[in-house]
Amino acid sequence: MRGAWIVDQGVSDITSAFKITRCLHDERTPYQHLEIYDSPRFGRMLVLDGAVQTTEGDEFVYHEMLAHPALCAHPRPRTVLIIGGGDGGLLEEVLKHPIERATMVEIDAAVVRASRQYLSTICGAAFEDPRATLVIGDGIAYVRETPDRFDVVLIDSTDPEGAATGLFAPEFYAQVANRLTPQGVLAVQSGSAVYQQELIRMVRRHLRPSFPTVRTYVATVTTYPGVLWSFTVGTKGRDPHAIAPEEIARRVAAIAGLRYYTPSGHRAAFDLPPYLREQVEME
Amino acid sequence: MRGAWIVDQGVSDITSAFKITRCLHDERTPYQHLEIYDSPRFGRMLVLDGAVQTTEGDEFVYHEMLAHPALCAHPRPRTVLIIGGGDGGLLEEVLKHPIERATMVEIDAAVVRASRQYLSTICGAAFEDPRATLVIGDGIAYVRETPDRFDVVLIDSTDPEGAATGLFAPEFYAQVANRLTPQGVLAVQSGSAVYQQELIRMVRRHLRPSFPTVRTYVATVTTYPGVLWSFTVGTKGRDPHAIAPEEIARRVAAIAGLRYYTPSGHRAAFDLPPYLREQVEME
Repeated sequence: MRGAWIVDQGVSDITSAFKITRCLHDERTPYQHLEIYDSPRFGRMLVLDGAVQTTEGDEFVYHEMLAHPALCAHPRPRTVLIIGGGDGGLLEEVLKHPIERATMVEIDAAVVRASRQYLSTICGAAFEDPRATLVIGDGIAYVRETPDRFDVVLIDSTDPEGAATGLFAPEFYAQVANRLTPQGVLAVQSGSAVYQQELIRMVRRHLRPSFPTVRTYVATVTTYPGVLWSFTVGTKGRDPHAIAPEEIARRVAAIAGLRYYTPSGHRAAFDLPPYLREQVEME
Repeated sequence: MRGAWIVDQGVSDITSAFKITRCLHDERTPYQHLEIYDSPRFGRMLVLDGAVQTTEGDEFVYHEMLAHPALCAHPRPRTVLIIGGGDGGLLEEVLKHPIERATMVEIDAAVVRASRQYLSTICGAAFEDPRATLVIGDGIAYVRETPDRFDVVLIDSTDPEGAATGLFAPEFYAQVANRLTPQGVLAVQSGSAVYQQELIRMVRRHLRPSFPTVRTYVATVTTYPGVLWSFTVGTKGRDPHAIAPEEIARRVAAIAGLRYYTPSGHRAAFDLPPYLREQVEME
């Protein structure tokens, strides 16, 4: 293990380490410690407070799987709100759908600035899309105060520590539900399916008072602790698990270059293996 | 990262580490360095030549997913041959089916001995089952010399280094095909889907001359490098991808306590995400 490594200790008794070749950016923002490294295996990596947030090599899994299941669960999404997601990778996936407007509210302008400078392979031209609006501000205050309503809301946050804590609170989820249209869908990243099962249960518990249907699904994100990563959806309309593969095939037919999300993979992601279903559904 | 850790460096630029609490067994066998550790997160761990082979915490994923897809791909398996698998976890899964005979050929008696002593939660009572026969010997020689024929052959080997190298050779696969009944199925562990894609391609290339149908599938084994693990099947009969969920449901109905393998999960495991399909099918 000679040389420089990013050591990402998800929990106290397991650690992953990724070899890095150089530091491209190192900044203390008002909210967090922001670093960007280059690595031989995953390309450029965005690291916040020591935790790998996204990498050029596997960002597509996380961003496709936070965007497309929720967008396809809504019958005809026109307006999308993203909370967090400063690297722009999620915004890029959202804009692949024929939506009218995507609003992204990121608290830390430095993340957007550094991502546009160093991670253009992740955000693409998303920030220049005329349908996209970037708001630098507090997502919780934004949701509380906006008069707008949205078809889909996506929460692309860090772990529930510091500025992100309130993004996992039942009060916040209730306010999101209040800003959603009648068939509205909320999707959140809900942590490692291996090491953060208590977090998944908490998210599900906090969503349930505001959403008649709550579903958890998974995807394999190589650079995240435990790799098997969870997302949880709350909907006011259709059950995302029940969307027919034929409808999804039709919805994504015009989207070129999906590398992880597929019509059959949509339902499979919600079909948790029994050991995991038991863990996340435990009360 | 204070204290004792198992560091499992799958490739040169990525590393996983697992906290361990004590060493239960440490032996230099004629074939390998065999260690058994206890760990707070995964219980007891079997480590061969420094690589984690199986743990009490996640063995069920690997063993269920090497056994059941192949057994369900065969219409009515009666005889099964396991090469390797000294910890007994795979044998235990195989014996959950109504088969007549399971033969296990493991080269290293020390692995069986240590597993029976320390890993009884993994092998259960498999070695005592009257349908099971344990042969200590070289699996390659066994396949070459046995007059028996098998419905299903499972290769539960270490990486293609040292004694295991020949278990990945096209000549060995041809001899296995020769020992299979007309609807016969061979399944092999084919390495990390993240870090050993060249190995997966090699296994597929080496199987193809002997098997009309070759399919790769995946499962998430937390303690293996990259977590997303690959298995590759060669069949002389049915396409394992095409087995109807209804048939699988009927076949596993009498098997209690499956924690990972399910009728819908069978097909989903073969539906590789596009980025991975492209990698493994690359010539």
